[in-house]
Amino acid sequence: MPVETAIQRLRHLPFEDLGFAKVDHHRALRHGMPEVILASGKSPKQIAAISRQLLKQNKNLLITRANKEVYGVVKKVARAAEFFPLSGAIRVHGDRTILGKGKIAVVCAGTSDIPVAEEAQVTAEVMGNEVETLYDVGVAGIHRLINNRERLTQARVIVCCAGMEGALPSVVGGLVSVPVIAVPTSVGYGASLHGLAALLGMLNSCASNVTVVNIDNGFGAAYVASMINRL
Amino acid sequence: MPVETAIQRLRHLPFEDLGFAKVDHHRALRHGMPEVILASGKSPKQIAAISRQLLKQNKNLLITRANKEVYGVVKKVARAAEFFPLSGAIRVHGDRTILGKGKIAVVCAGTSDIPVAEEAQVTAEVMGNEVETLYDVGVAGIHRLINNRERLTQARVIVCCAGMEGALPSVVGGLVSVPVIAVPTSVGYGASLHGLAALLGMLNSCASNVTVVNIDNGFGAAYVASMINRL
Amino acid sequence: MPVETAIQRLRHLPFEDLGFAKVDHHRALRHGMPEVILASGKSPKQIAAISRQLLKQNKNLLITRANKEVYGVVKKVARAAEFFPLSGAIRVHGDRTILGKGKIAVVCAGTSDIPVAEEAQVTAEVMGNEVETLYDVGVAGIHRLINNRERLTQARVIVCCAGMEGALPSVVGGLVSVPVIAVPTSVGYGASLHGLAALLGMLNSCASNVTVVNIDNGFGAAYVASMINRL
Amino acid sequence: MPVETAIQRLRHLPFEDLGFAKVDHHRALRHGMPEVILASGKSPKQIAAISRQLLKQNKNLLITRANKEVYGVVKKVARAAEFFPLSGAIRVHGDRTILGKGKIAVVCAGTSDIPVAEEAQVTAEVMGNEVETLYDVGVAGIHRLINNRERLTQARVIVCCAGMEGALPSVVGGLVSVPVIAVPTSVGYGASLHGLAALLGMLNSCASNVTVVNIDNGFGAAYVASMINRL
Amino acid sequence: MPVETAIQRLRHLPFEDLGFAKVDHHRALRHGMPEVILASGKSPKQIAAISRQLLKQNKNLLITRANKEVYGVVKKVARAAEFFPLSGAIRVHGDRTILGKGKIAVVCAGTSDIPVAEEAQVTAEVMGNEVETLYDVGVAGIHRLINNRERLTQARVIVCCAGMEGALPSVVGGLVSVPVIAVPTSVGYGASLHGLAALLGMLNSCASNVTVVNIDNGFGAAYVASMINRL
Amino acid sequence: MPVETAIQRLRHLPFEDLGFAKVDHHRALRHGMPEVILASGKSPKQIAAISRQLLKQNKNLLITRANKEVYGVVKKVARAAEFFPLSGAIRVHGDRTILGKGKIAVVCAGTSDIPVAEEAQVTAEVMGNEVETLYDVGVAGIHRLINNRERLTQARVIVCCAGMEGALPSVVGGLVSVPVIAVPTSVGYGASLHGLAALLGMLNSCASNVTVVNIDNGFGAAYVASMINRL
Amino acid sequence: MPVETAIQRLRHLPFEDLGFAKVDHHRALRHGMPEVILASGKSPKQIAAISRQLLKQNKNLLITRANKEVYGVVKKVARAAEFFPLSGAIRVHGDRTILGKGKIAVVCAGTSDIPVAEEAQVTAEVMGNEVETLYDVGVAGIHRLINNRERLTQARVIVCCAGMEGALPSVVGGLVSVPVIAVPTSVGYGASLHGLAALLGMLNSCASNVTVVNIDNGFGAAYVASMINRL
Amino acid sequence: MPVETAIQRLRHLPFEDLGFAKVDHHRALRHGMPEVILASGKSPKQIAAISRQLLKQNKNLLITRANKEVYGVVKKVARAAEFFPLSGAIRVHGDRTILGKGKIAVVCAGTSDIPVAEEAQVTAEVMGNEVETLYDVGVAGIHRLINNRERLTQARVIVCCAGMEGALPSVVGGLVSVPVIAVPTSVGYGASLHGLAALLGMLNSCASNVTVVNIDNGFGAAYVASMINRL
Repeated sequence: MPVETAIQRLRHLPFEDLGFAKVDHHRALRHGMPEVILASGKSPKQIAAISRQLLKQNKNLLITRANKEVYGVVKKVARAAEFFPLSGAIRVHGDRTILGKGKIAVVCAGTSDIPVAEEAQVTAEVMGNEVETLYDVGVAGIHRLINNRERLTQARVIVCCAGMEGALPSVVGGLVSVPVIAVPTSVGYGASLHGLAALLGMLNSCASNVTVVNIDNGFGAAYVASMINRL
Repeated sequence: MPVETAIQRLRHLPFEDLGFAKVDHHRALRHGMPEVILASGKSPKQIAAISRQLLKQNKNLLITRANKEVYGVVKKVARAAEFFPLSGAIRVHGDRTILGKGKIAVVCAGTSDIPVAEEAQVTAEVMGNEVETLYDVGVAGIHRLINNRERLTQARVIVCCAGMEGALPSVVGGLVSVPVIAVPTSVGYGASLHGLAALLGMLNSCASNVTVVNIDNGFGAAYVASMINRL
Repeated sequence: MPVETAIQRLRHLPFEDLGFAKVDHHRALRHGMPEVILASGKSPKQIAAISRQLLKQNKNLLITRANKEVYGVVKKVARAAEFFPLSGAIRVHGDRTILGKGKIAVVCAGTSDIPVAEEAQVTAEVMGNEVETLYDVGVAGIHRLINNRERLTQARVIVCCAGMEGALPSVVGGLVSVPVIAVPTSVGYGASLHGLAALLGMLNSCASNVTVVNIDNGFGAAYVASMINRL
Repeated sequence: MPVETAIQRLRHLPFEDLGFAKVDHHRALRHGMPEVILASGKSPKQIAAISRQLLKQNKNLLITRANKEVYGVVKKVARAAEFFPLSGAIRVHGDRTILGKGKIAVVCAGTSDIPVAEEAQVTAEVMGNEVETLYDVGVAGIHRLINNRERLTQARVIVCCAGMEGALPSVVGGLVSVPVIAVPTSVGYGASLHGLAALLGMLNSCASNVTVVNIDNGFGAAYVASMINRL
Repeated sequence: MPVETAIQRLRHLPFEDLGFAKVDHHRALRHGMPEVILASGKSPKQIAAISRQLLKQNKNLLITRANKEVYGVVKKVARAAEFFPLSGAIRVHGDRTILGKGKIAVVCAGTSDIPVAEEAQVTAEVMGNEVETLYDVGVAGIHRLINNRERLTQARVIVCCAGMEGALPSVVGGLVSVPVIAVPTSVGYGASLHGLAALLGMLNSCASNVTVVNIDNGFGAAYVASMINRL
Repeated sequence: MPVETAIQRLRHLPFEDLGFAKVDHHRALRHGMPEVILASGKSPKQIAAISRQLLKQNKNLLITRANKEVYGVVKKVARAAEFFPLSGAIRVHGDRTILGKGKIAVVCAGTSDIPVAEEAQVTAEVMGNEVETLYDVGVAGIHRLINNRERLTQARVIVCCAGMEGALPSVVGGLVSVPVIAVPTSVGYGASLHGLAALLGMLNSCASNVTVVNIDNGFGAAYVASMINRL
Repeated sequence: MPVETAIQRLRHLPFEDLGFAKVDHHRALRHGMPEVILASGKSPKQIAAISRQLLKQNKNLLITRANKEVYGVVKKVARAAEFFPLSGAIRVHGDRTILGKGKIAVVCAGTSDIPVAEEAQVTAEVMGNEVETLYDVGVAGIHRLINNRERLTQARVIVCCAGMEGALPSVVGGLVSVPVIAVPTSVGYGASLHGLAALLGMLNSCASNVTVVNIDNGFGAAYVASMINRL
Repeated sequence: MPVETAIQRLRHLPFEDLGFAKVDHHRALRHGMPEVILASGKSPKQIAAISRQLLKQNKNLLITRANKEVYGVVKKVARAAEFFPLSGAIRVHGDRTILGKGKIAVVCAGTSDIPVAEEAQVTAEVMGNEVETLYDVGVAGIHRLINNRERLTQARVIVCCAGMEGALPSVVGGLVSVPVIAVPTSVGYGASLHGLAALLGMLNSCASNVTVVNIDNGFGAAYVASMINRL
């Protein structure tokens, strides 16, 4: 009786109650991805405690939006932890098995978008993907993009980060025949409205193969890209 | 010499100049999808002209956001055209080959979201997918969703339409381990701000496997879902 | 003659003029609640002066959005004052009589929403309620919530705090048959617009038993919950 | 074993699948309220079908945001149906048992807010409450409100509708010691932004006993008021 | 004494008082352009009256945002008047002297942007320019634009109209070395926010040679382009 | 004992209960102005009923935002009623006593702003003021304004209506030494955001003698101007 | 010949060029007010230089939005300068002649609004008015306001400051028959949107004698109030 | 065969890959302008590296939005670098050839707008233009502007910076017959919304010769002005 079984399974999904958090070991199973910790809004102590629990069941760990202080604490829990200062990511990459069936390309429009692109790259790698990066190919110098078109067409999924007018995903989407996940960045000033202009632009993309995630959410884009890349 | 070759190929991409439109036959090749006509903002005459051109090279055709008047004109160009009055879609579905590797589930939160879900369904089908629909499973009666969880978990990609607070993709995203493409709908009133509330909610989804398209863009969601489903 | 009497009573409502503030001792009488001080925008000196006046007539006192410096000053006025650093609440809880007829449940979606939930908890307790807390039960891991459904259904009123997409109150509202007071939190980034996304989502909730208060207003939600709980 | 029992109960929650809608008979049980149909976005046929199903299990029925055409169709399903043209509500009120423990006061600021107040009144009555109305008592003629203060203080819950600057709930909230549910209305022009100004005002109310629902949502306010009035 | 002279000249600037309007014949002198009538918000009678006055001093006349009814009335004042139904422009083009030193290119992204592009074209022509149009060259099919690059580089000024994400001016700006005047159009739906998304995108253009005018303001863009083209 | 007296007086303020409205005859006494009816949101019947009551105590009556149908009904109640079709105002002007101590100037920027200016003019006249109008003096033809500077400086208060960028009040404010009441109008398109651009501009006026009322609120501006003009 | 005279006078209006500023001594003449310096965005040096120039021609000087550092510098230019730390105002009040014909009341809703009210008070005094202050009379404790109604009715103009929902001006406006200048303050959090909620509320005031200035603009309100009070 | 040639040329456009940036030497050729570095979002090291590359091919260099630390590093790369502290611009001005055919006037409304005006001035000079500045001529003291009208009319292009209500470009646009490039500045507070009010005002300018750039984008305005001035 499948409905009952589903419910039963739902009920027995494991989570671990740390008091301030209910760590969901099962999500790793469900999604086939390691659990990820968003550092902002959590104390270093809390992050260390969650990290310790997660590393009991996973060889890989990703912490996003952290800083040097958090890194200091995590380092004690996991010697192998690396810190990526542009994006604030911390990564334990014990298991480097490639799980994705193709390459993920991470593209960004300008030098200032690199921190968001880095978060995407670090995420995609720790989720078991080969990553190809292509930086500073904004649309006002379209030849830089076209010169690299072959690298784009070799990817199975593309993560595309851009601030300001956020036009890059539309152009990239038109050049390839794979899904493009657009990440608006908060790069810009004035009427960029902290990334809202880029976000709105991407949501209105005239290329039909573009979907969008939240502003500066390099992690989320790479997470979905990884999931697609395993299909 | 790959760069030059790429450029050469770019240059020779075919498009057909109708004066008021440059019909891009190549996009069908690039994306492996039939070209699609967005009816709004075009006259019935223009739509008929573009349809005629496209049907010379494709057995399938999709026209979105049309009305009965447009249908009357298209019917003369293509006898087999069907009209879907809720969503305003017109479809010629001559080639019914299944190209997707799995099922696409199209889910919606309430009865009023059905027009957007229908646009997604019609699109996914004409692009060669098996589609499973699941309607009126909004989160305020969570048992209706959970009772259908098995159907969700059998899909390879999910398109999830919701208006008002737009909470459904977050719950669905947590129940499955495949990409969820969220479509905010303009269903609601007052503070729904014509779908902006749902859009913002979906962009902030706490489920990491959710990406978002424009408000009421059932077509776009199904287009990307089809692309993913062929990978 | 009831109208005249009402007016007369209105006129004689006591308030005390401290120059910079007109302390409304009567509100305690009218609402049956202790007066509460919102610390932000007041100097430590002013807060101490108002505290002194209020404690002459009440055994309980609540100060919200304070900091350590304010706590130092209040400590001198009231030895028994406690400080809650996550939310910045200061509480004198001399009279612990239970006035509410049932339990108030304080629920929150993620670890980062705890400061707002704590403000609600501290408020509900000082107003004479038994409080049940349920933290980190966001909708992307719906099993964590469903596993705790019994605790929800035992409450007489529910305060439900969530940031990002703010979907939790809709799901909770569907599971229970009591009023749910939704508190959007400013947790999130980018398109969360400092809590506006959650606020809009909650105002559009498809669950009919949900009302909403201002972003991060844990105090206000608990205040109304207390009032309902005494009915 | 309570958790399992809860889940089992959840699974067996009855709903009836009409194809385009999953009618949730159980909500009536859970909330102790009749199911309600939001007419906008549904065809007269669909409304008639849902009405027929609901009236099999309930003597009372409420349809909101309907029009004369819908009324014509519903009239055939239920002879006793009444139509309220200001608000567009349709009501079958077969069971007039009073379930609320006290009175609900429905207050509005101006003549133009009456449609929203009427929706609240009709809802509160069909849910089994005695309702007291107090119309056109906006704050710019404060004496009209104060002259009616006794009627306010006799209510157990207050629904308070106001457009334009939305100031009435703050004043009412200060005069009474019961929960006030504020309904912003879309009455106004220009900077009223279709009710957003009133909504924002109410969310920022300096009276602590005020919670808010969506713009023009007289139904929702009365629903929660009914729920509170039964506690 | 130049200051005094300037003031004196300012004082004697001619305008003609029609009661409801002060017709500024001098602007034609100052700007070297015919006066233009914005039809929206004026009655056909008023438009006819102003037209009559203007045609006494100019051989050319432009009326924007008119309709067939206005055209009927203007036709009586000026036999030679043409009507452009897509944009609603009415034009008397008696003097066809070419005043611009080069070509103005009017470019648009999609078929639905043509009405705005037409307003720009009609304006630029009546102001004495040779105009080159290039339609339906949106960035998702970048080869259509690149194939026409020579035509772009031959222009002395470019007017570039695009709705949805408004990305075209950035790409065009990068391909040419002349000023690009970007016109956001209200083409799109949902998050296009009636052209605001395109407007914000263009204001944040990463191409430095782009300036922006109001949404759908084809006239304004062509007016400035004409002024530049005479320098 | 002045406080008690004040309260007593407050209580006895007369208002007349028509059921759907509480007509506040006292406001005329308090403000020294006739009561005014905002027609929008009221039925012709309601307007007629309120008009009849008001005309029992006042020789003057003003109805704003009405239409021909309302005028037909009011005409039966008050033979002398005039209708102003641009603004939709209806006026009974039985008592033409001049109560203002000086002139009120009503200035507007363009022909399309005249309806709002007319509402201001009609209001100021019925409130007993001499009114001077100055139309179509927008800032892009500054000589038209400067040529009329003497007329501005002879006014005791100025009402200044402008749409689009709303710059006129700043320039007028700098030319005179009396209060300027700025009325943003909804004239414009695109980024005028239905008058919001003009409203924001006026609120940020660099002239210190400018205050602002709601978009298109010619009535409100003239009401305050009348009140000032009687001081 | 009045037009010419006006122009001539305009031309000869004195201003003094300091390079970075054109000090407009004439505004004092035109408006009968001392020139005022907005400190924010100017360096202490610049402020000192402008102060020195202004004090040559005026006995009174007002500097708004300054800080202690600026005060230190101004103190050297003008020994008699006072500093008001809540509002950041600096005042030289050498000429204390009363020029206003009546009292100006400065009213505020809460303790946190006092800085803005202080700016209004300091401004009104230096412009030659008697000022009556009434603080902490927010609408949620309406008896505090009504108890002080006599003081309100004795004023000739009222400046009314309120944050959060900004309801106070509507209530005050209904109690008096003089102009009320409403000042929204940035007091509040979350949905107060830094004062926008209060601003929108005040613009939609149902009291017709209310006009509005920019958020936190106590100076501007008092400036206009002074101008009205001299009429 | 011109299309092929264009594509070939496009392909061979030179850019230099520094890893984190693709320096586009060709833009200098295409636009005839030196490449410009936007410092914000780049590290001093990155800026120094890019500067070194650019100075190999250009005698002139412009860095915008830098600070003293960046200046220290750039100074080592280029001895002749000047720093402009108000705007944060760094300039190497080795080649002072005048390339513009006329003067560019840079006008600003108030003292606080000078930083943005300075960025425009520095940019226009380094691009080979004679620049005329006119500061503190805001519209509330219109005589200051009119007294300088001759200087305006001598310019070939005008850059016009204003914050608050942003009215200056409309008045300037009406006084001259050349293109006016409007730069909204973030000067103001409250309802200025960080420059959005000025931006919206300028986009709605009633002067037809006004185009707009992003908030505070003095550089962009001067860049386009330079391009126009060479035509």
